[in-house]
Amino acid sequence: MSDIGMIEAAAARAEGIVRRTPLLSSPFLDEIAGRPVYVKCEALQHTGSFKFRGGWSALSALTDDLRARGVLAFSSGNHAQGVARAAQLHGVPATIIMPADAPRLKIENTRAMGAEVVLYDRAGGEDRNEIGARLRDERGLTLIRPFDEPLVIAGQGTCGLEIAEQAAEAGVTEATVLVCCGGGGFTAGIALALEARAPGMRVHPVEPAGFDDTARSLASGGIVRNEGPEAGFCDAILTPAPGEITFPIMSRLCGPGIVVTEEEVRRAMRHAFDRLKVVAEPGGAVALAAALFHGDELGDELGDGPVIATISGGNVDRALFAEVLAEG
Amino acid sequence: MSDIGMIEAAAARAEGIVRRTPLLSSPFLDEIAGRPVYVKCEALQHTGSFKFRGGWSALSALTDDLRARGVLAFSSGNHAQGVARAAQLHGVPATIIMPADAPRLKIENTRAMGAEVVLYDRAGGEDRNEIGARLRDERGLTLIRPFDEPLVIAGQGTCGLEIAEQAAEAGVTEATVLVCCGGGGFTAGIALALEARAPGMRVHPVEPAGFDDTARSLASGGIVRNEGPEAGFCDAILTPAPGEITFPIMSRLCGPGIVVTEEEVRRAMRHAFDRLKVVAEPGGAVALAAALFHGDELGDELGDGPVIATISGGNVDRALFAEVLAEG
Repeated sequence: MSDIGMIEAAAARAEGIVRRTPLLSSPFLDEIAGRPVYVKCEALQHTGSFKFRGGWSALSALTDDLRARGVLAFSSGNHAQGVARAAQLHGVPATIIMPADAPRLKIENTRAMGAEVVLYDRAGGEDRNEIGARLRDERGLTLIRPFDEPLVIAGQGTCGLEIAEQAAEAGVTEATVLVCCGGGGFTAGIALALEARAPGMRVHPVEPAGFDDTARSLASGGIVRNEGPEAGFCDAILTPAPGEITFPIMSRLCGPGIVVTEEEVRRAMRHAFDRLKVVAEPGGAVALAAALFHGDELGDELGDGPVIATISGGNVDRALFAEVLAEG
Repeated sequence: MSDIGMIEAAAARAEGIVRRTPLLSSPFLDEIAGRPVYVKCEALQHTGSFKFRGGWSALSALTDDLRARGVLAFSSGNHAQGVARAAQLHGVPATIIMPADAPRLKIENTRAMGAEVVLYDRAGGEDRNEIGARLRDERGLTLIRPFDEPLVIAGQGTCGLEIAEQAAEAGVTEATVLVCCGGGGFTAGIALALEARAPGMRVHPVEPAGFDDTARSLASGGIVRNEGPEAGFCDAILTPAPGEITFPIMSRLCGPGIVVTEEEVRRAMRHAFDRLKVVAEPGGAVALAAALFHGDELGDELGDGPVIATISGGNVDRALFAEVLAEG
């Protein structure tokens, strides 16, 4: 079970490897939100997203023998790159199963980091689990799950340790913390870290409209699945349901989920460009969108107190980013 | 005269205010350059450029009485914002004289930071010095020069202290350091800091083609002016000549200047987007362009040893950035 001890152990294994990303701010963002806004920029992490934390945590905890045989991951892109780079730095093989319609940049980067990429056609109904099981058995690979894996949650939690430290340096110990949420690994990890290190902070997961499985699960008290399409604008955080491990953690520690529109996400991407000079991918901008445009849902506890939003990743194709900039 | 003592004093005054920007890297950039590349990201500094360091340094060193009367600056944009924000944080008035054709974003931001912006028509031959002298005398303002001012050079030098520390943490004590160069305040400040804190590093100024006054001045041993147009793609670093104070420092401490083309700058902006998730403005990307595409000019001393490039700023209009992304 993930806990603060596992997160601290993950942080110790990550020392000198995982980047301590900056906590940025801008008076322009404060003005839009009507409260102090701090932004934890995981787009600036190795491989362009927080996923390197979890990948490194999982790989670095394997026995030398298991690790040498190689690792396997399923991912539309950011977990793929995080695991591929962690494997490359350890000098072990990675096999990554990706949907053929994942962003081109993410597929190319994963390959360029030395991983073998196996594409499958999700619209055509190919079963990625079958492909994965076959490869795992043939090659003796260890599966690194993207979120429902205690070592991965612990790795993502190292970001929470940094948030607690950096916010305290800025004089902030009470805040609403908004986390971009797919399967809940990042949200659960940060919530566990803050429970121990910054108990005055409350985490809310943030999701895009149409993919609000976590918000609905938290509201109903049990895991609820998305019934809509599998793909969408915020590709990095579109998971069908919160995890069996992540959901109980979020249920215990998080406030209600916040749901943002695609238009709000696009505006948040432009504000991150203008005010922070950071590239946010669509799924990485949902928490900033919530901070800027959903102030009324941040909970009464703190009034117009500070909000800390994650930018979880920046892996976006040039053409899409140019389109988002041009329309603003 | 600027020296390491002034830089350390500036760093002490900046404590808790000026942001310690990250030193980033990417295996993809290393591959292009054929050597380890580190990037000091001053685009992530307050106001989106290193200029806040110099502005803060100068403002914070004034007597309360002088500061309260207000400050004056001439700038096409980044120095304007750095001084305006430093004045805003001190609660004193700033008057900024800007060319009417400066990037829209820079003019708007300077106003939004509470400064009074006075526009002049540089093509039409209006004399900004006359306008400035009149305002200074009428209002008792203190002029904050953009680069030829020891307190400003000392402020920019605080970036050099960070480079020395962060490179050492990455195990790098010998490196070529490339600095985006306009009037030479940033270059001279960093060179002075590294002379004292990382004597195994050698600084080279980098300029865009057509505005290579510093490179030509260093080569000829005396200050040489640009005779071409005043405006251009790399707006942030287009100064007619190195300064009377900055040039002797650069002449004593720097290797030859490196000159990059506009096409190389555009490619560097795209690589910063893809690989670092950082927004670089044209003038802010010249040093990265030199690191990636001018390896043969980095000096023989280190062979294919590490290079550290500054991204000096990220204040670029959305439309221009979208255009640069779309053409790649």
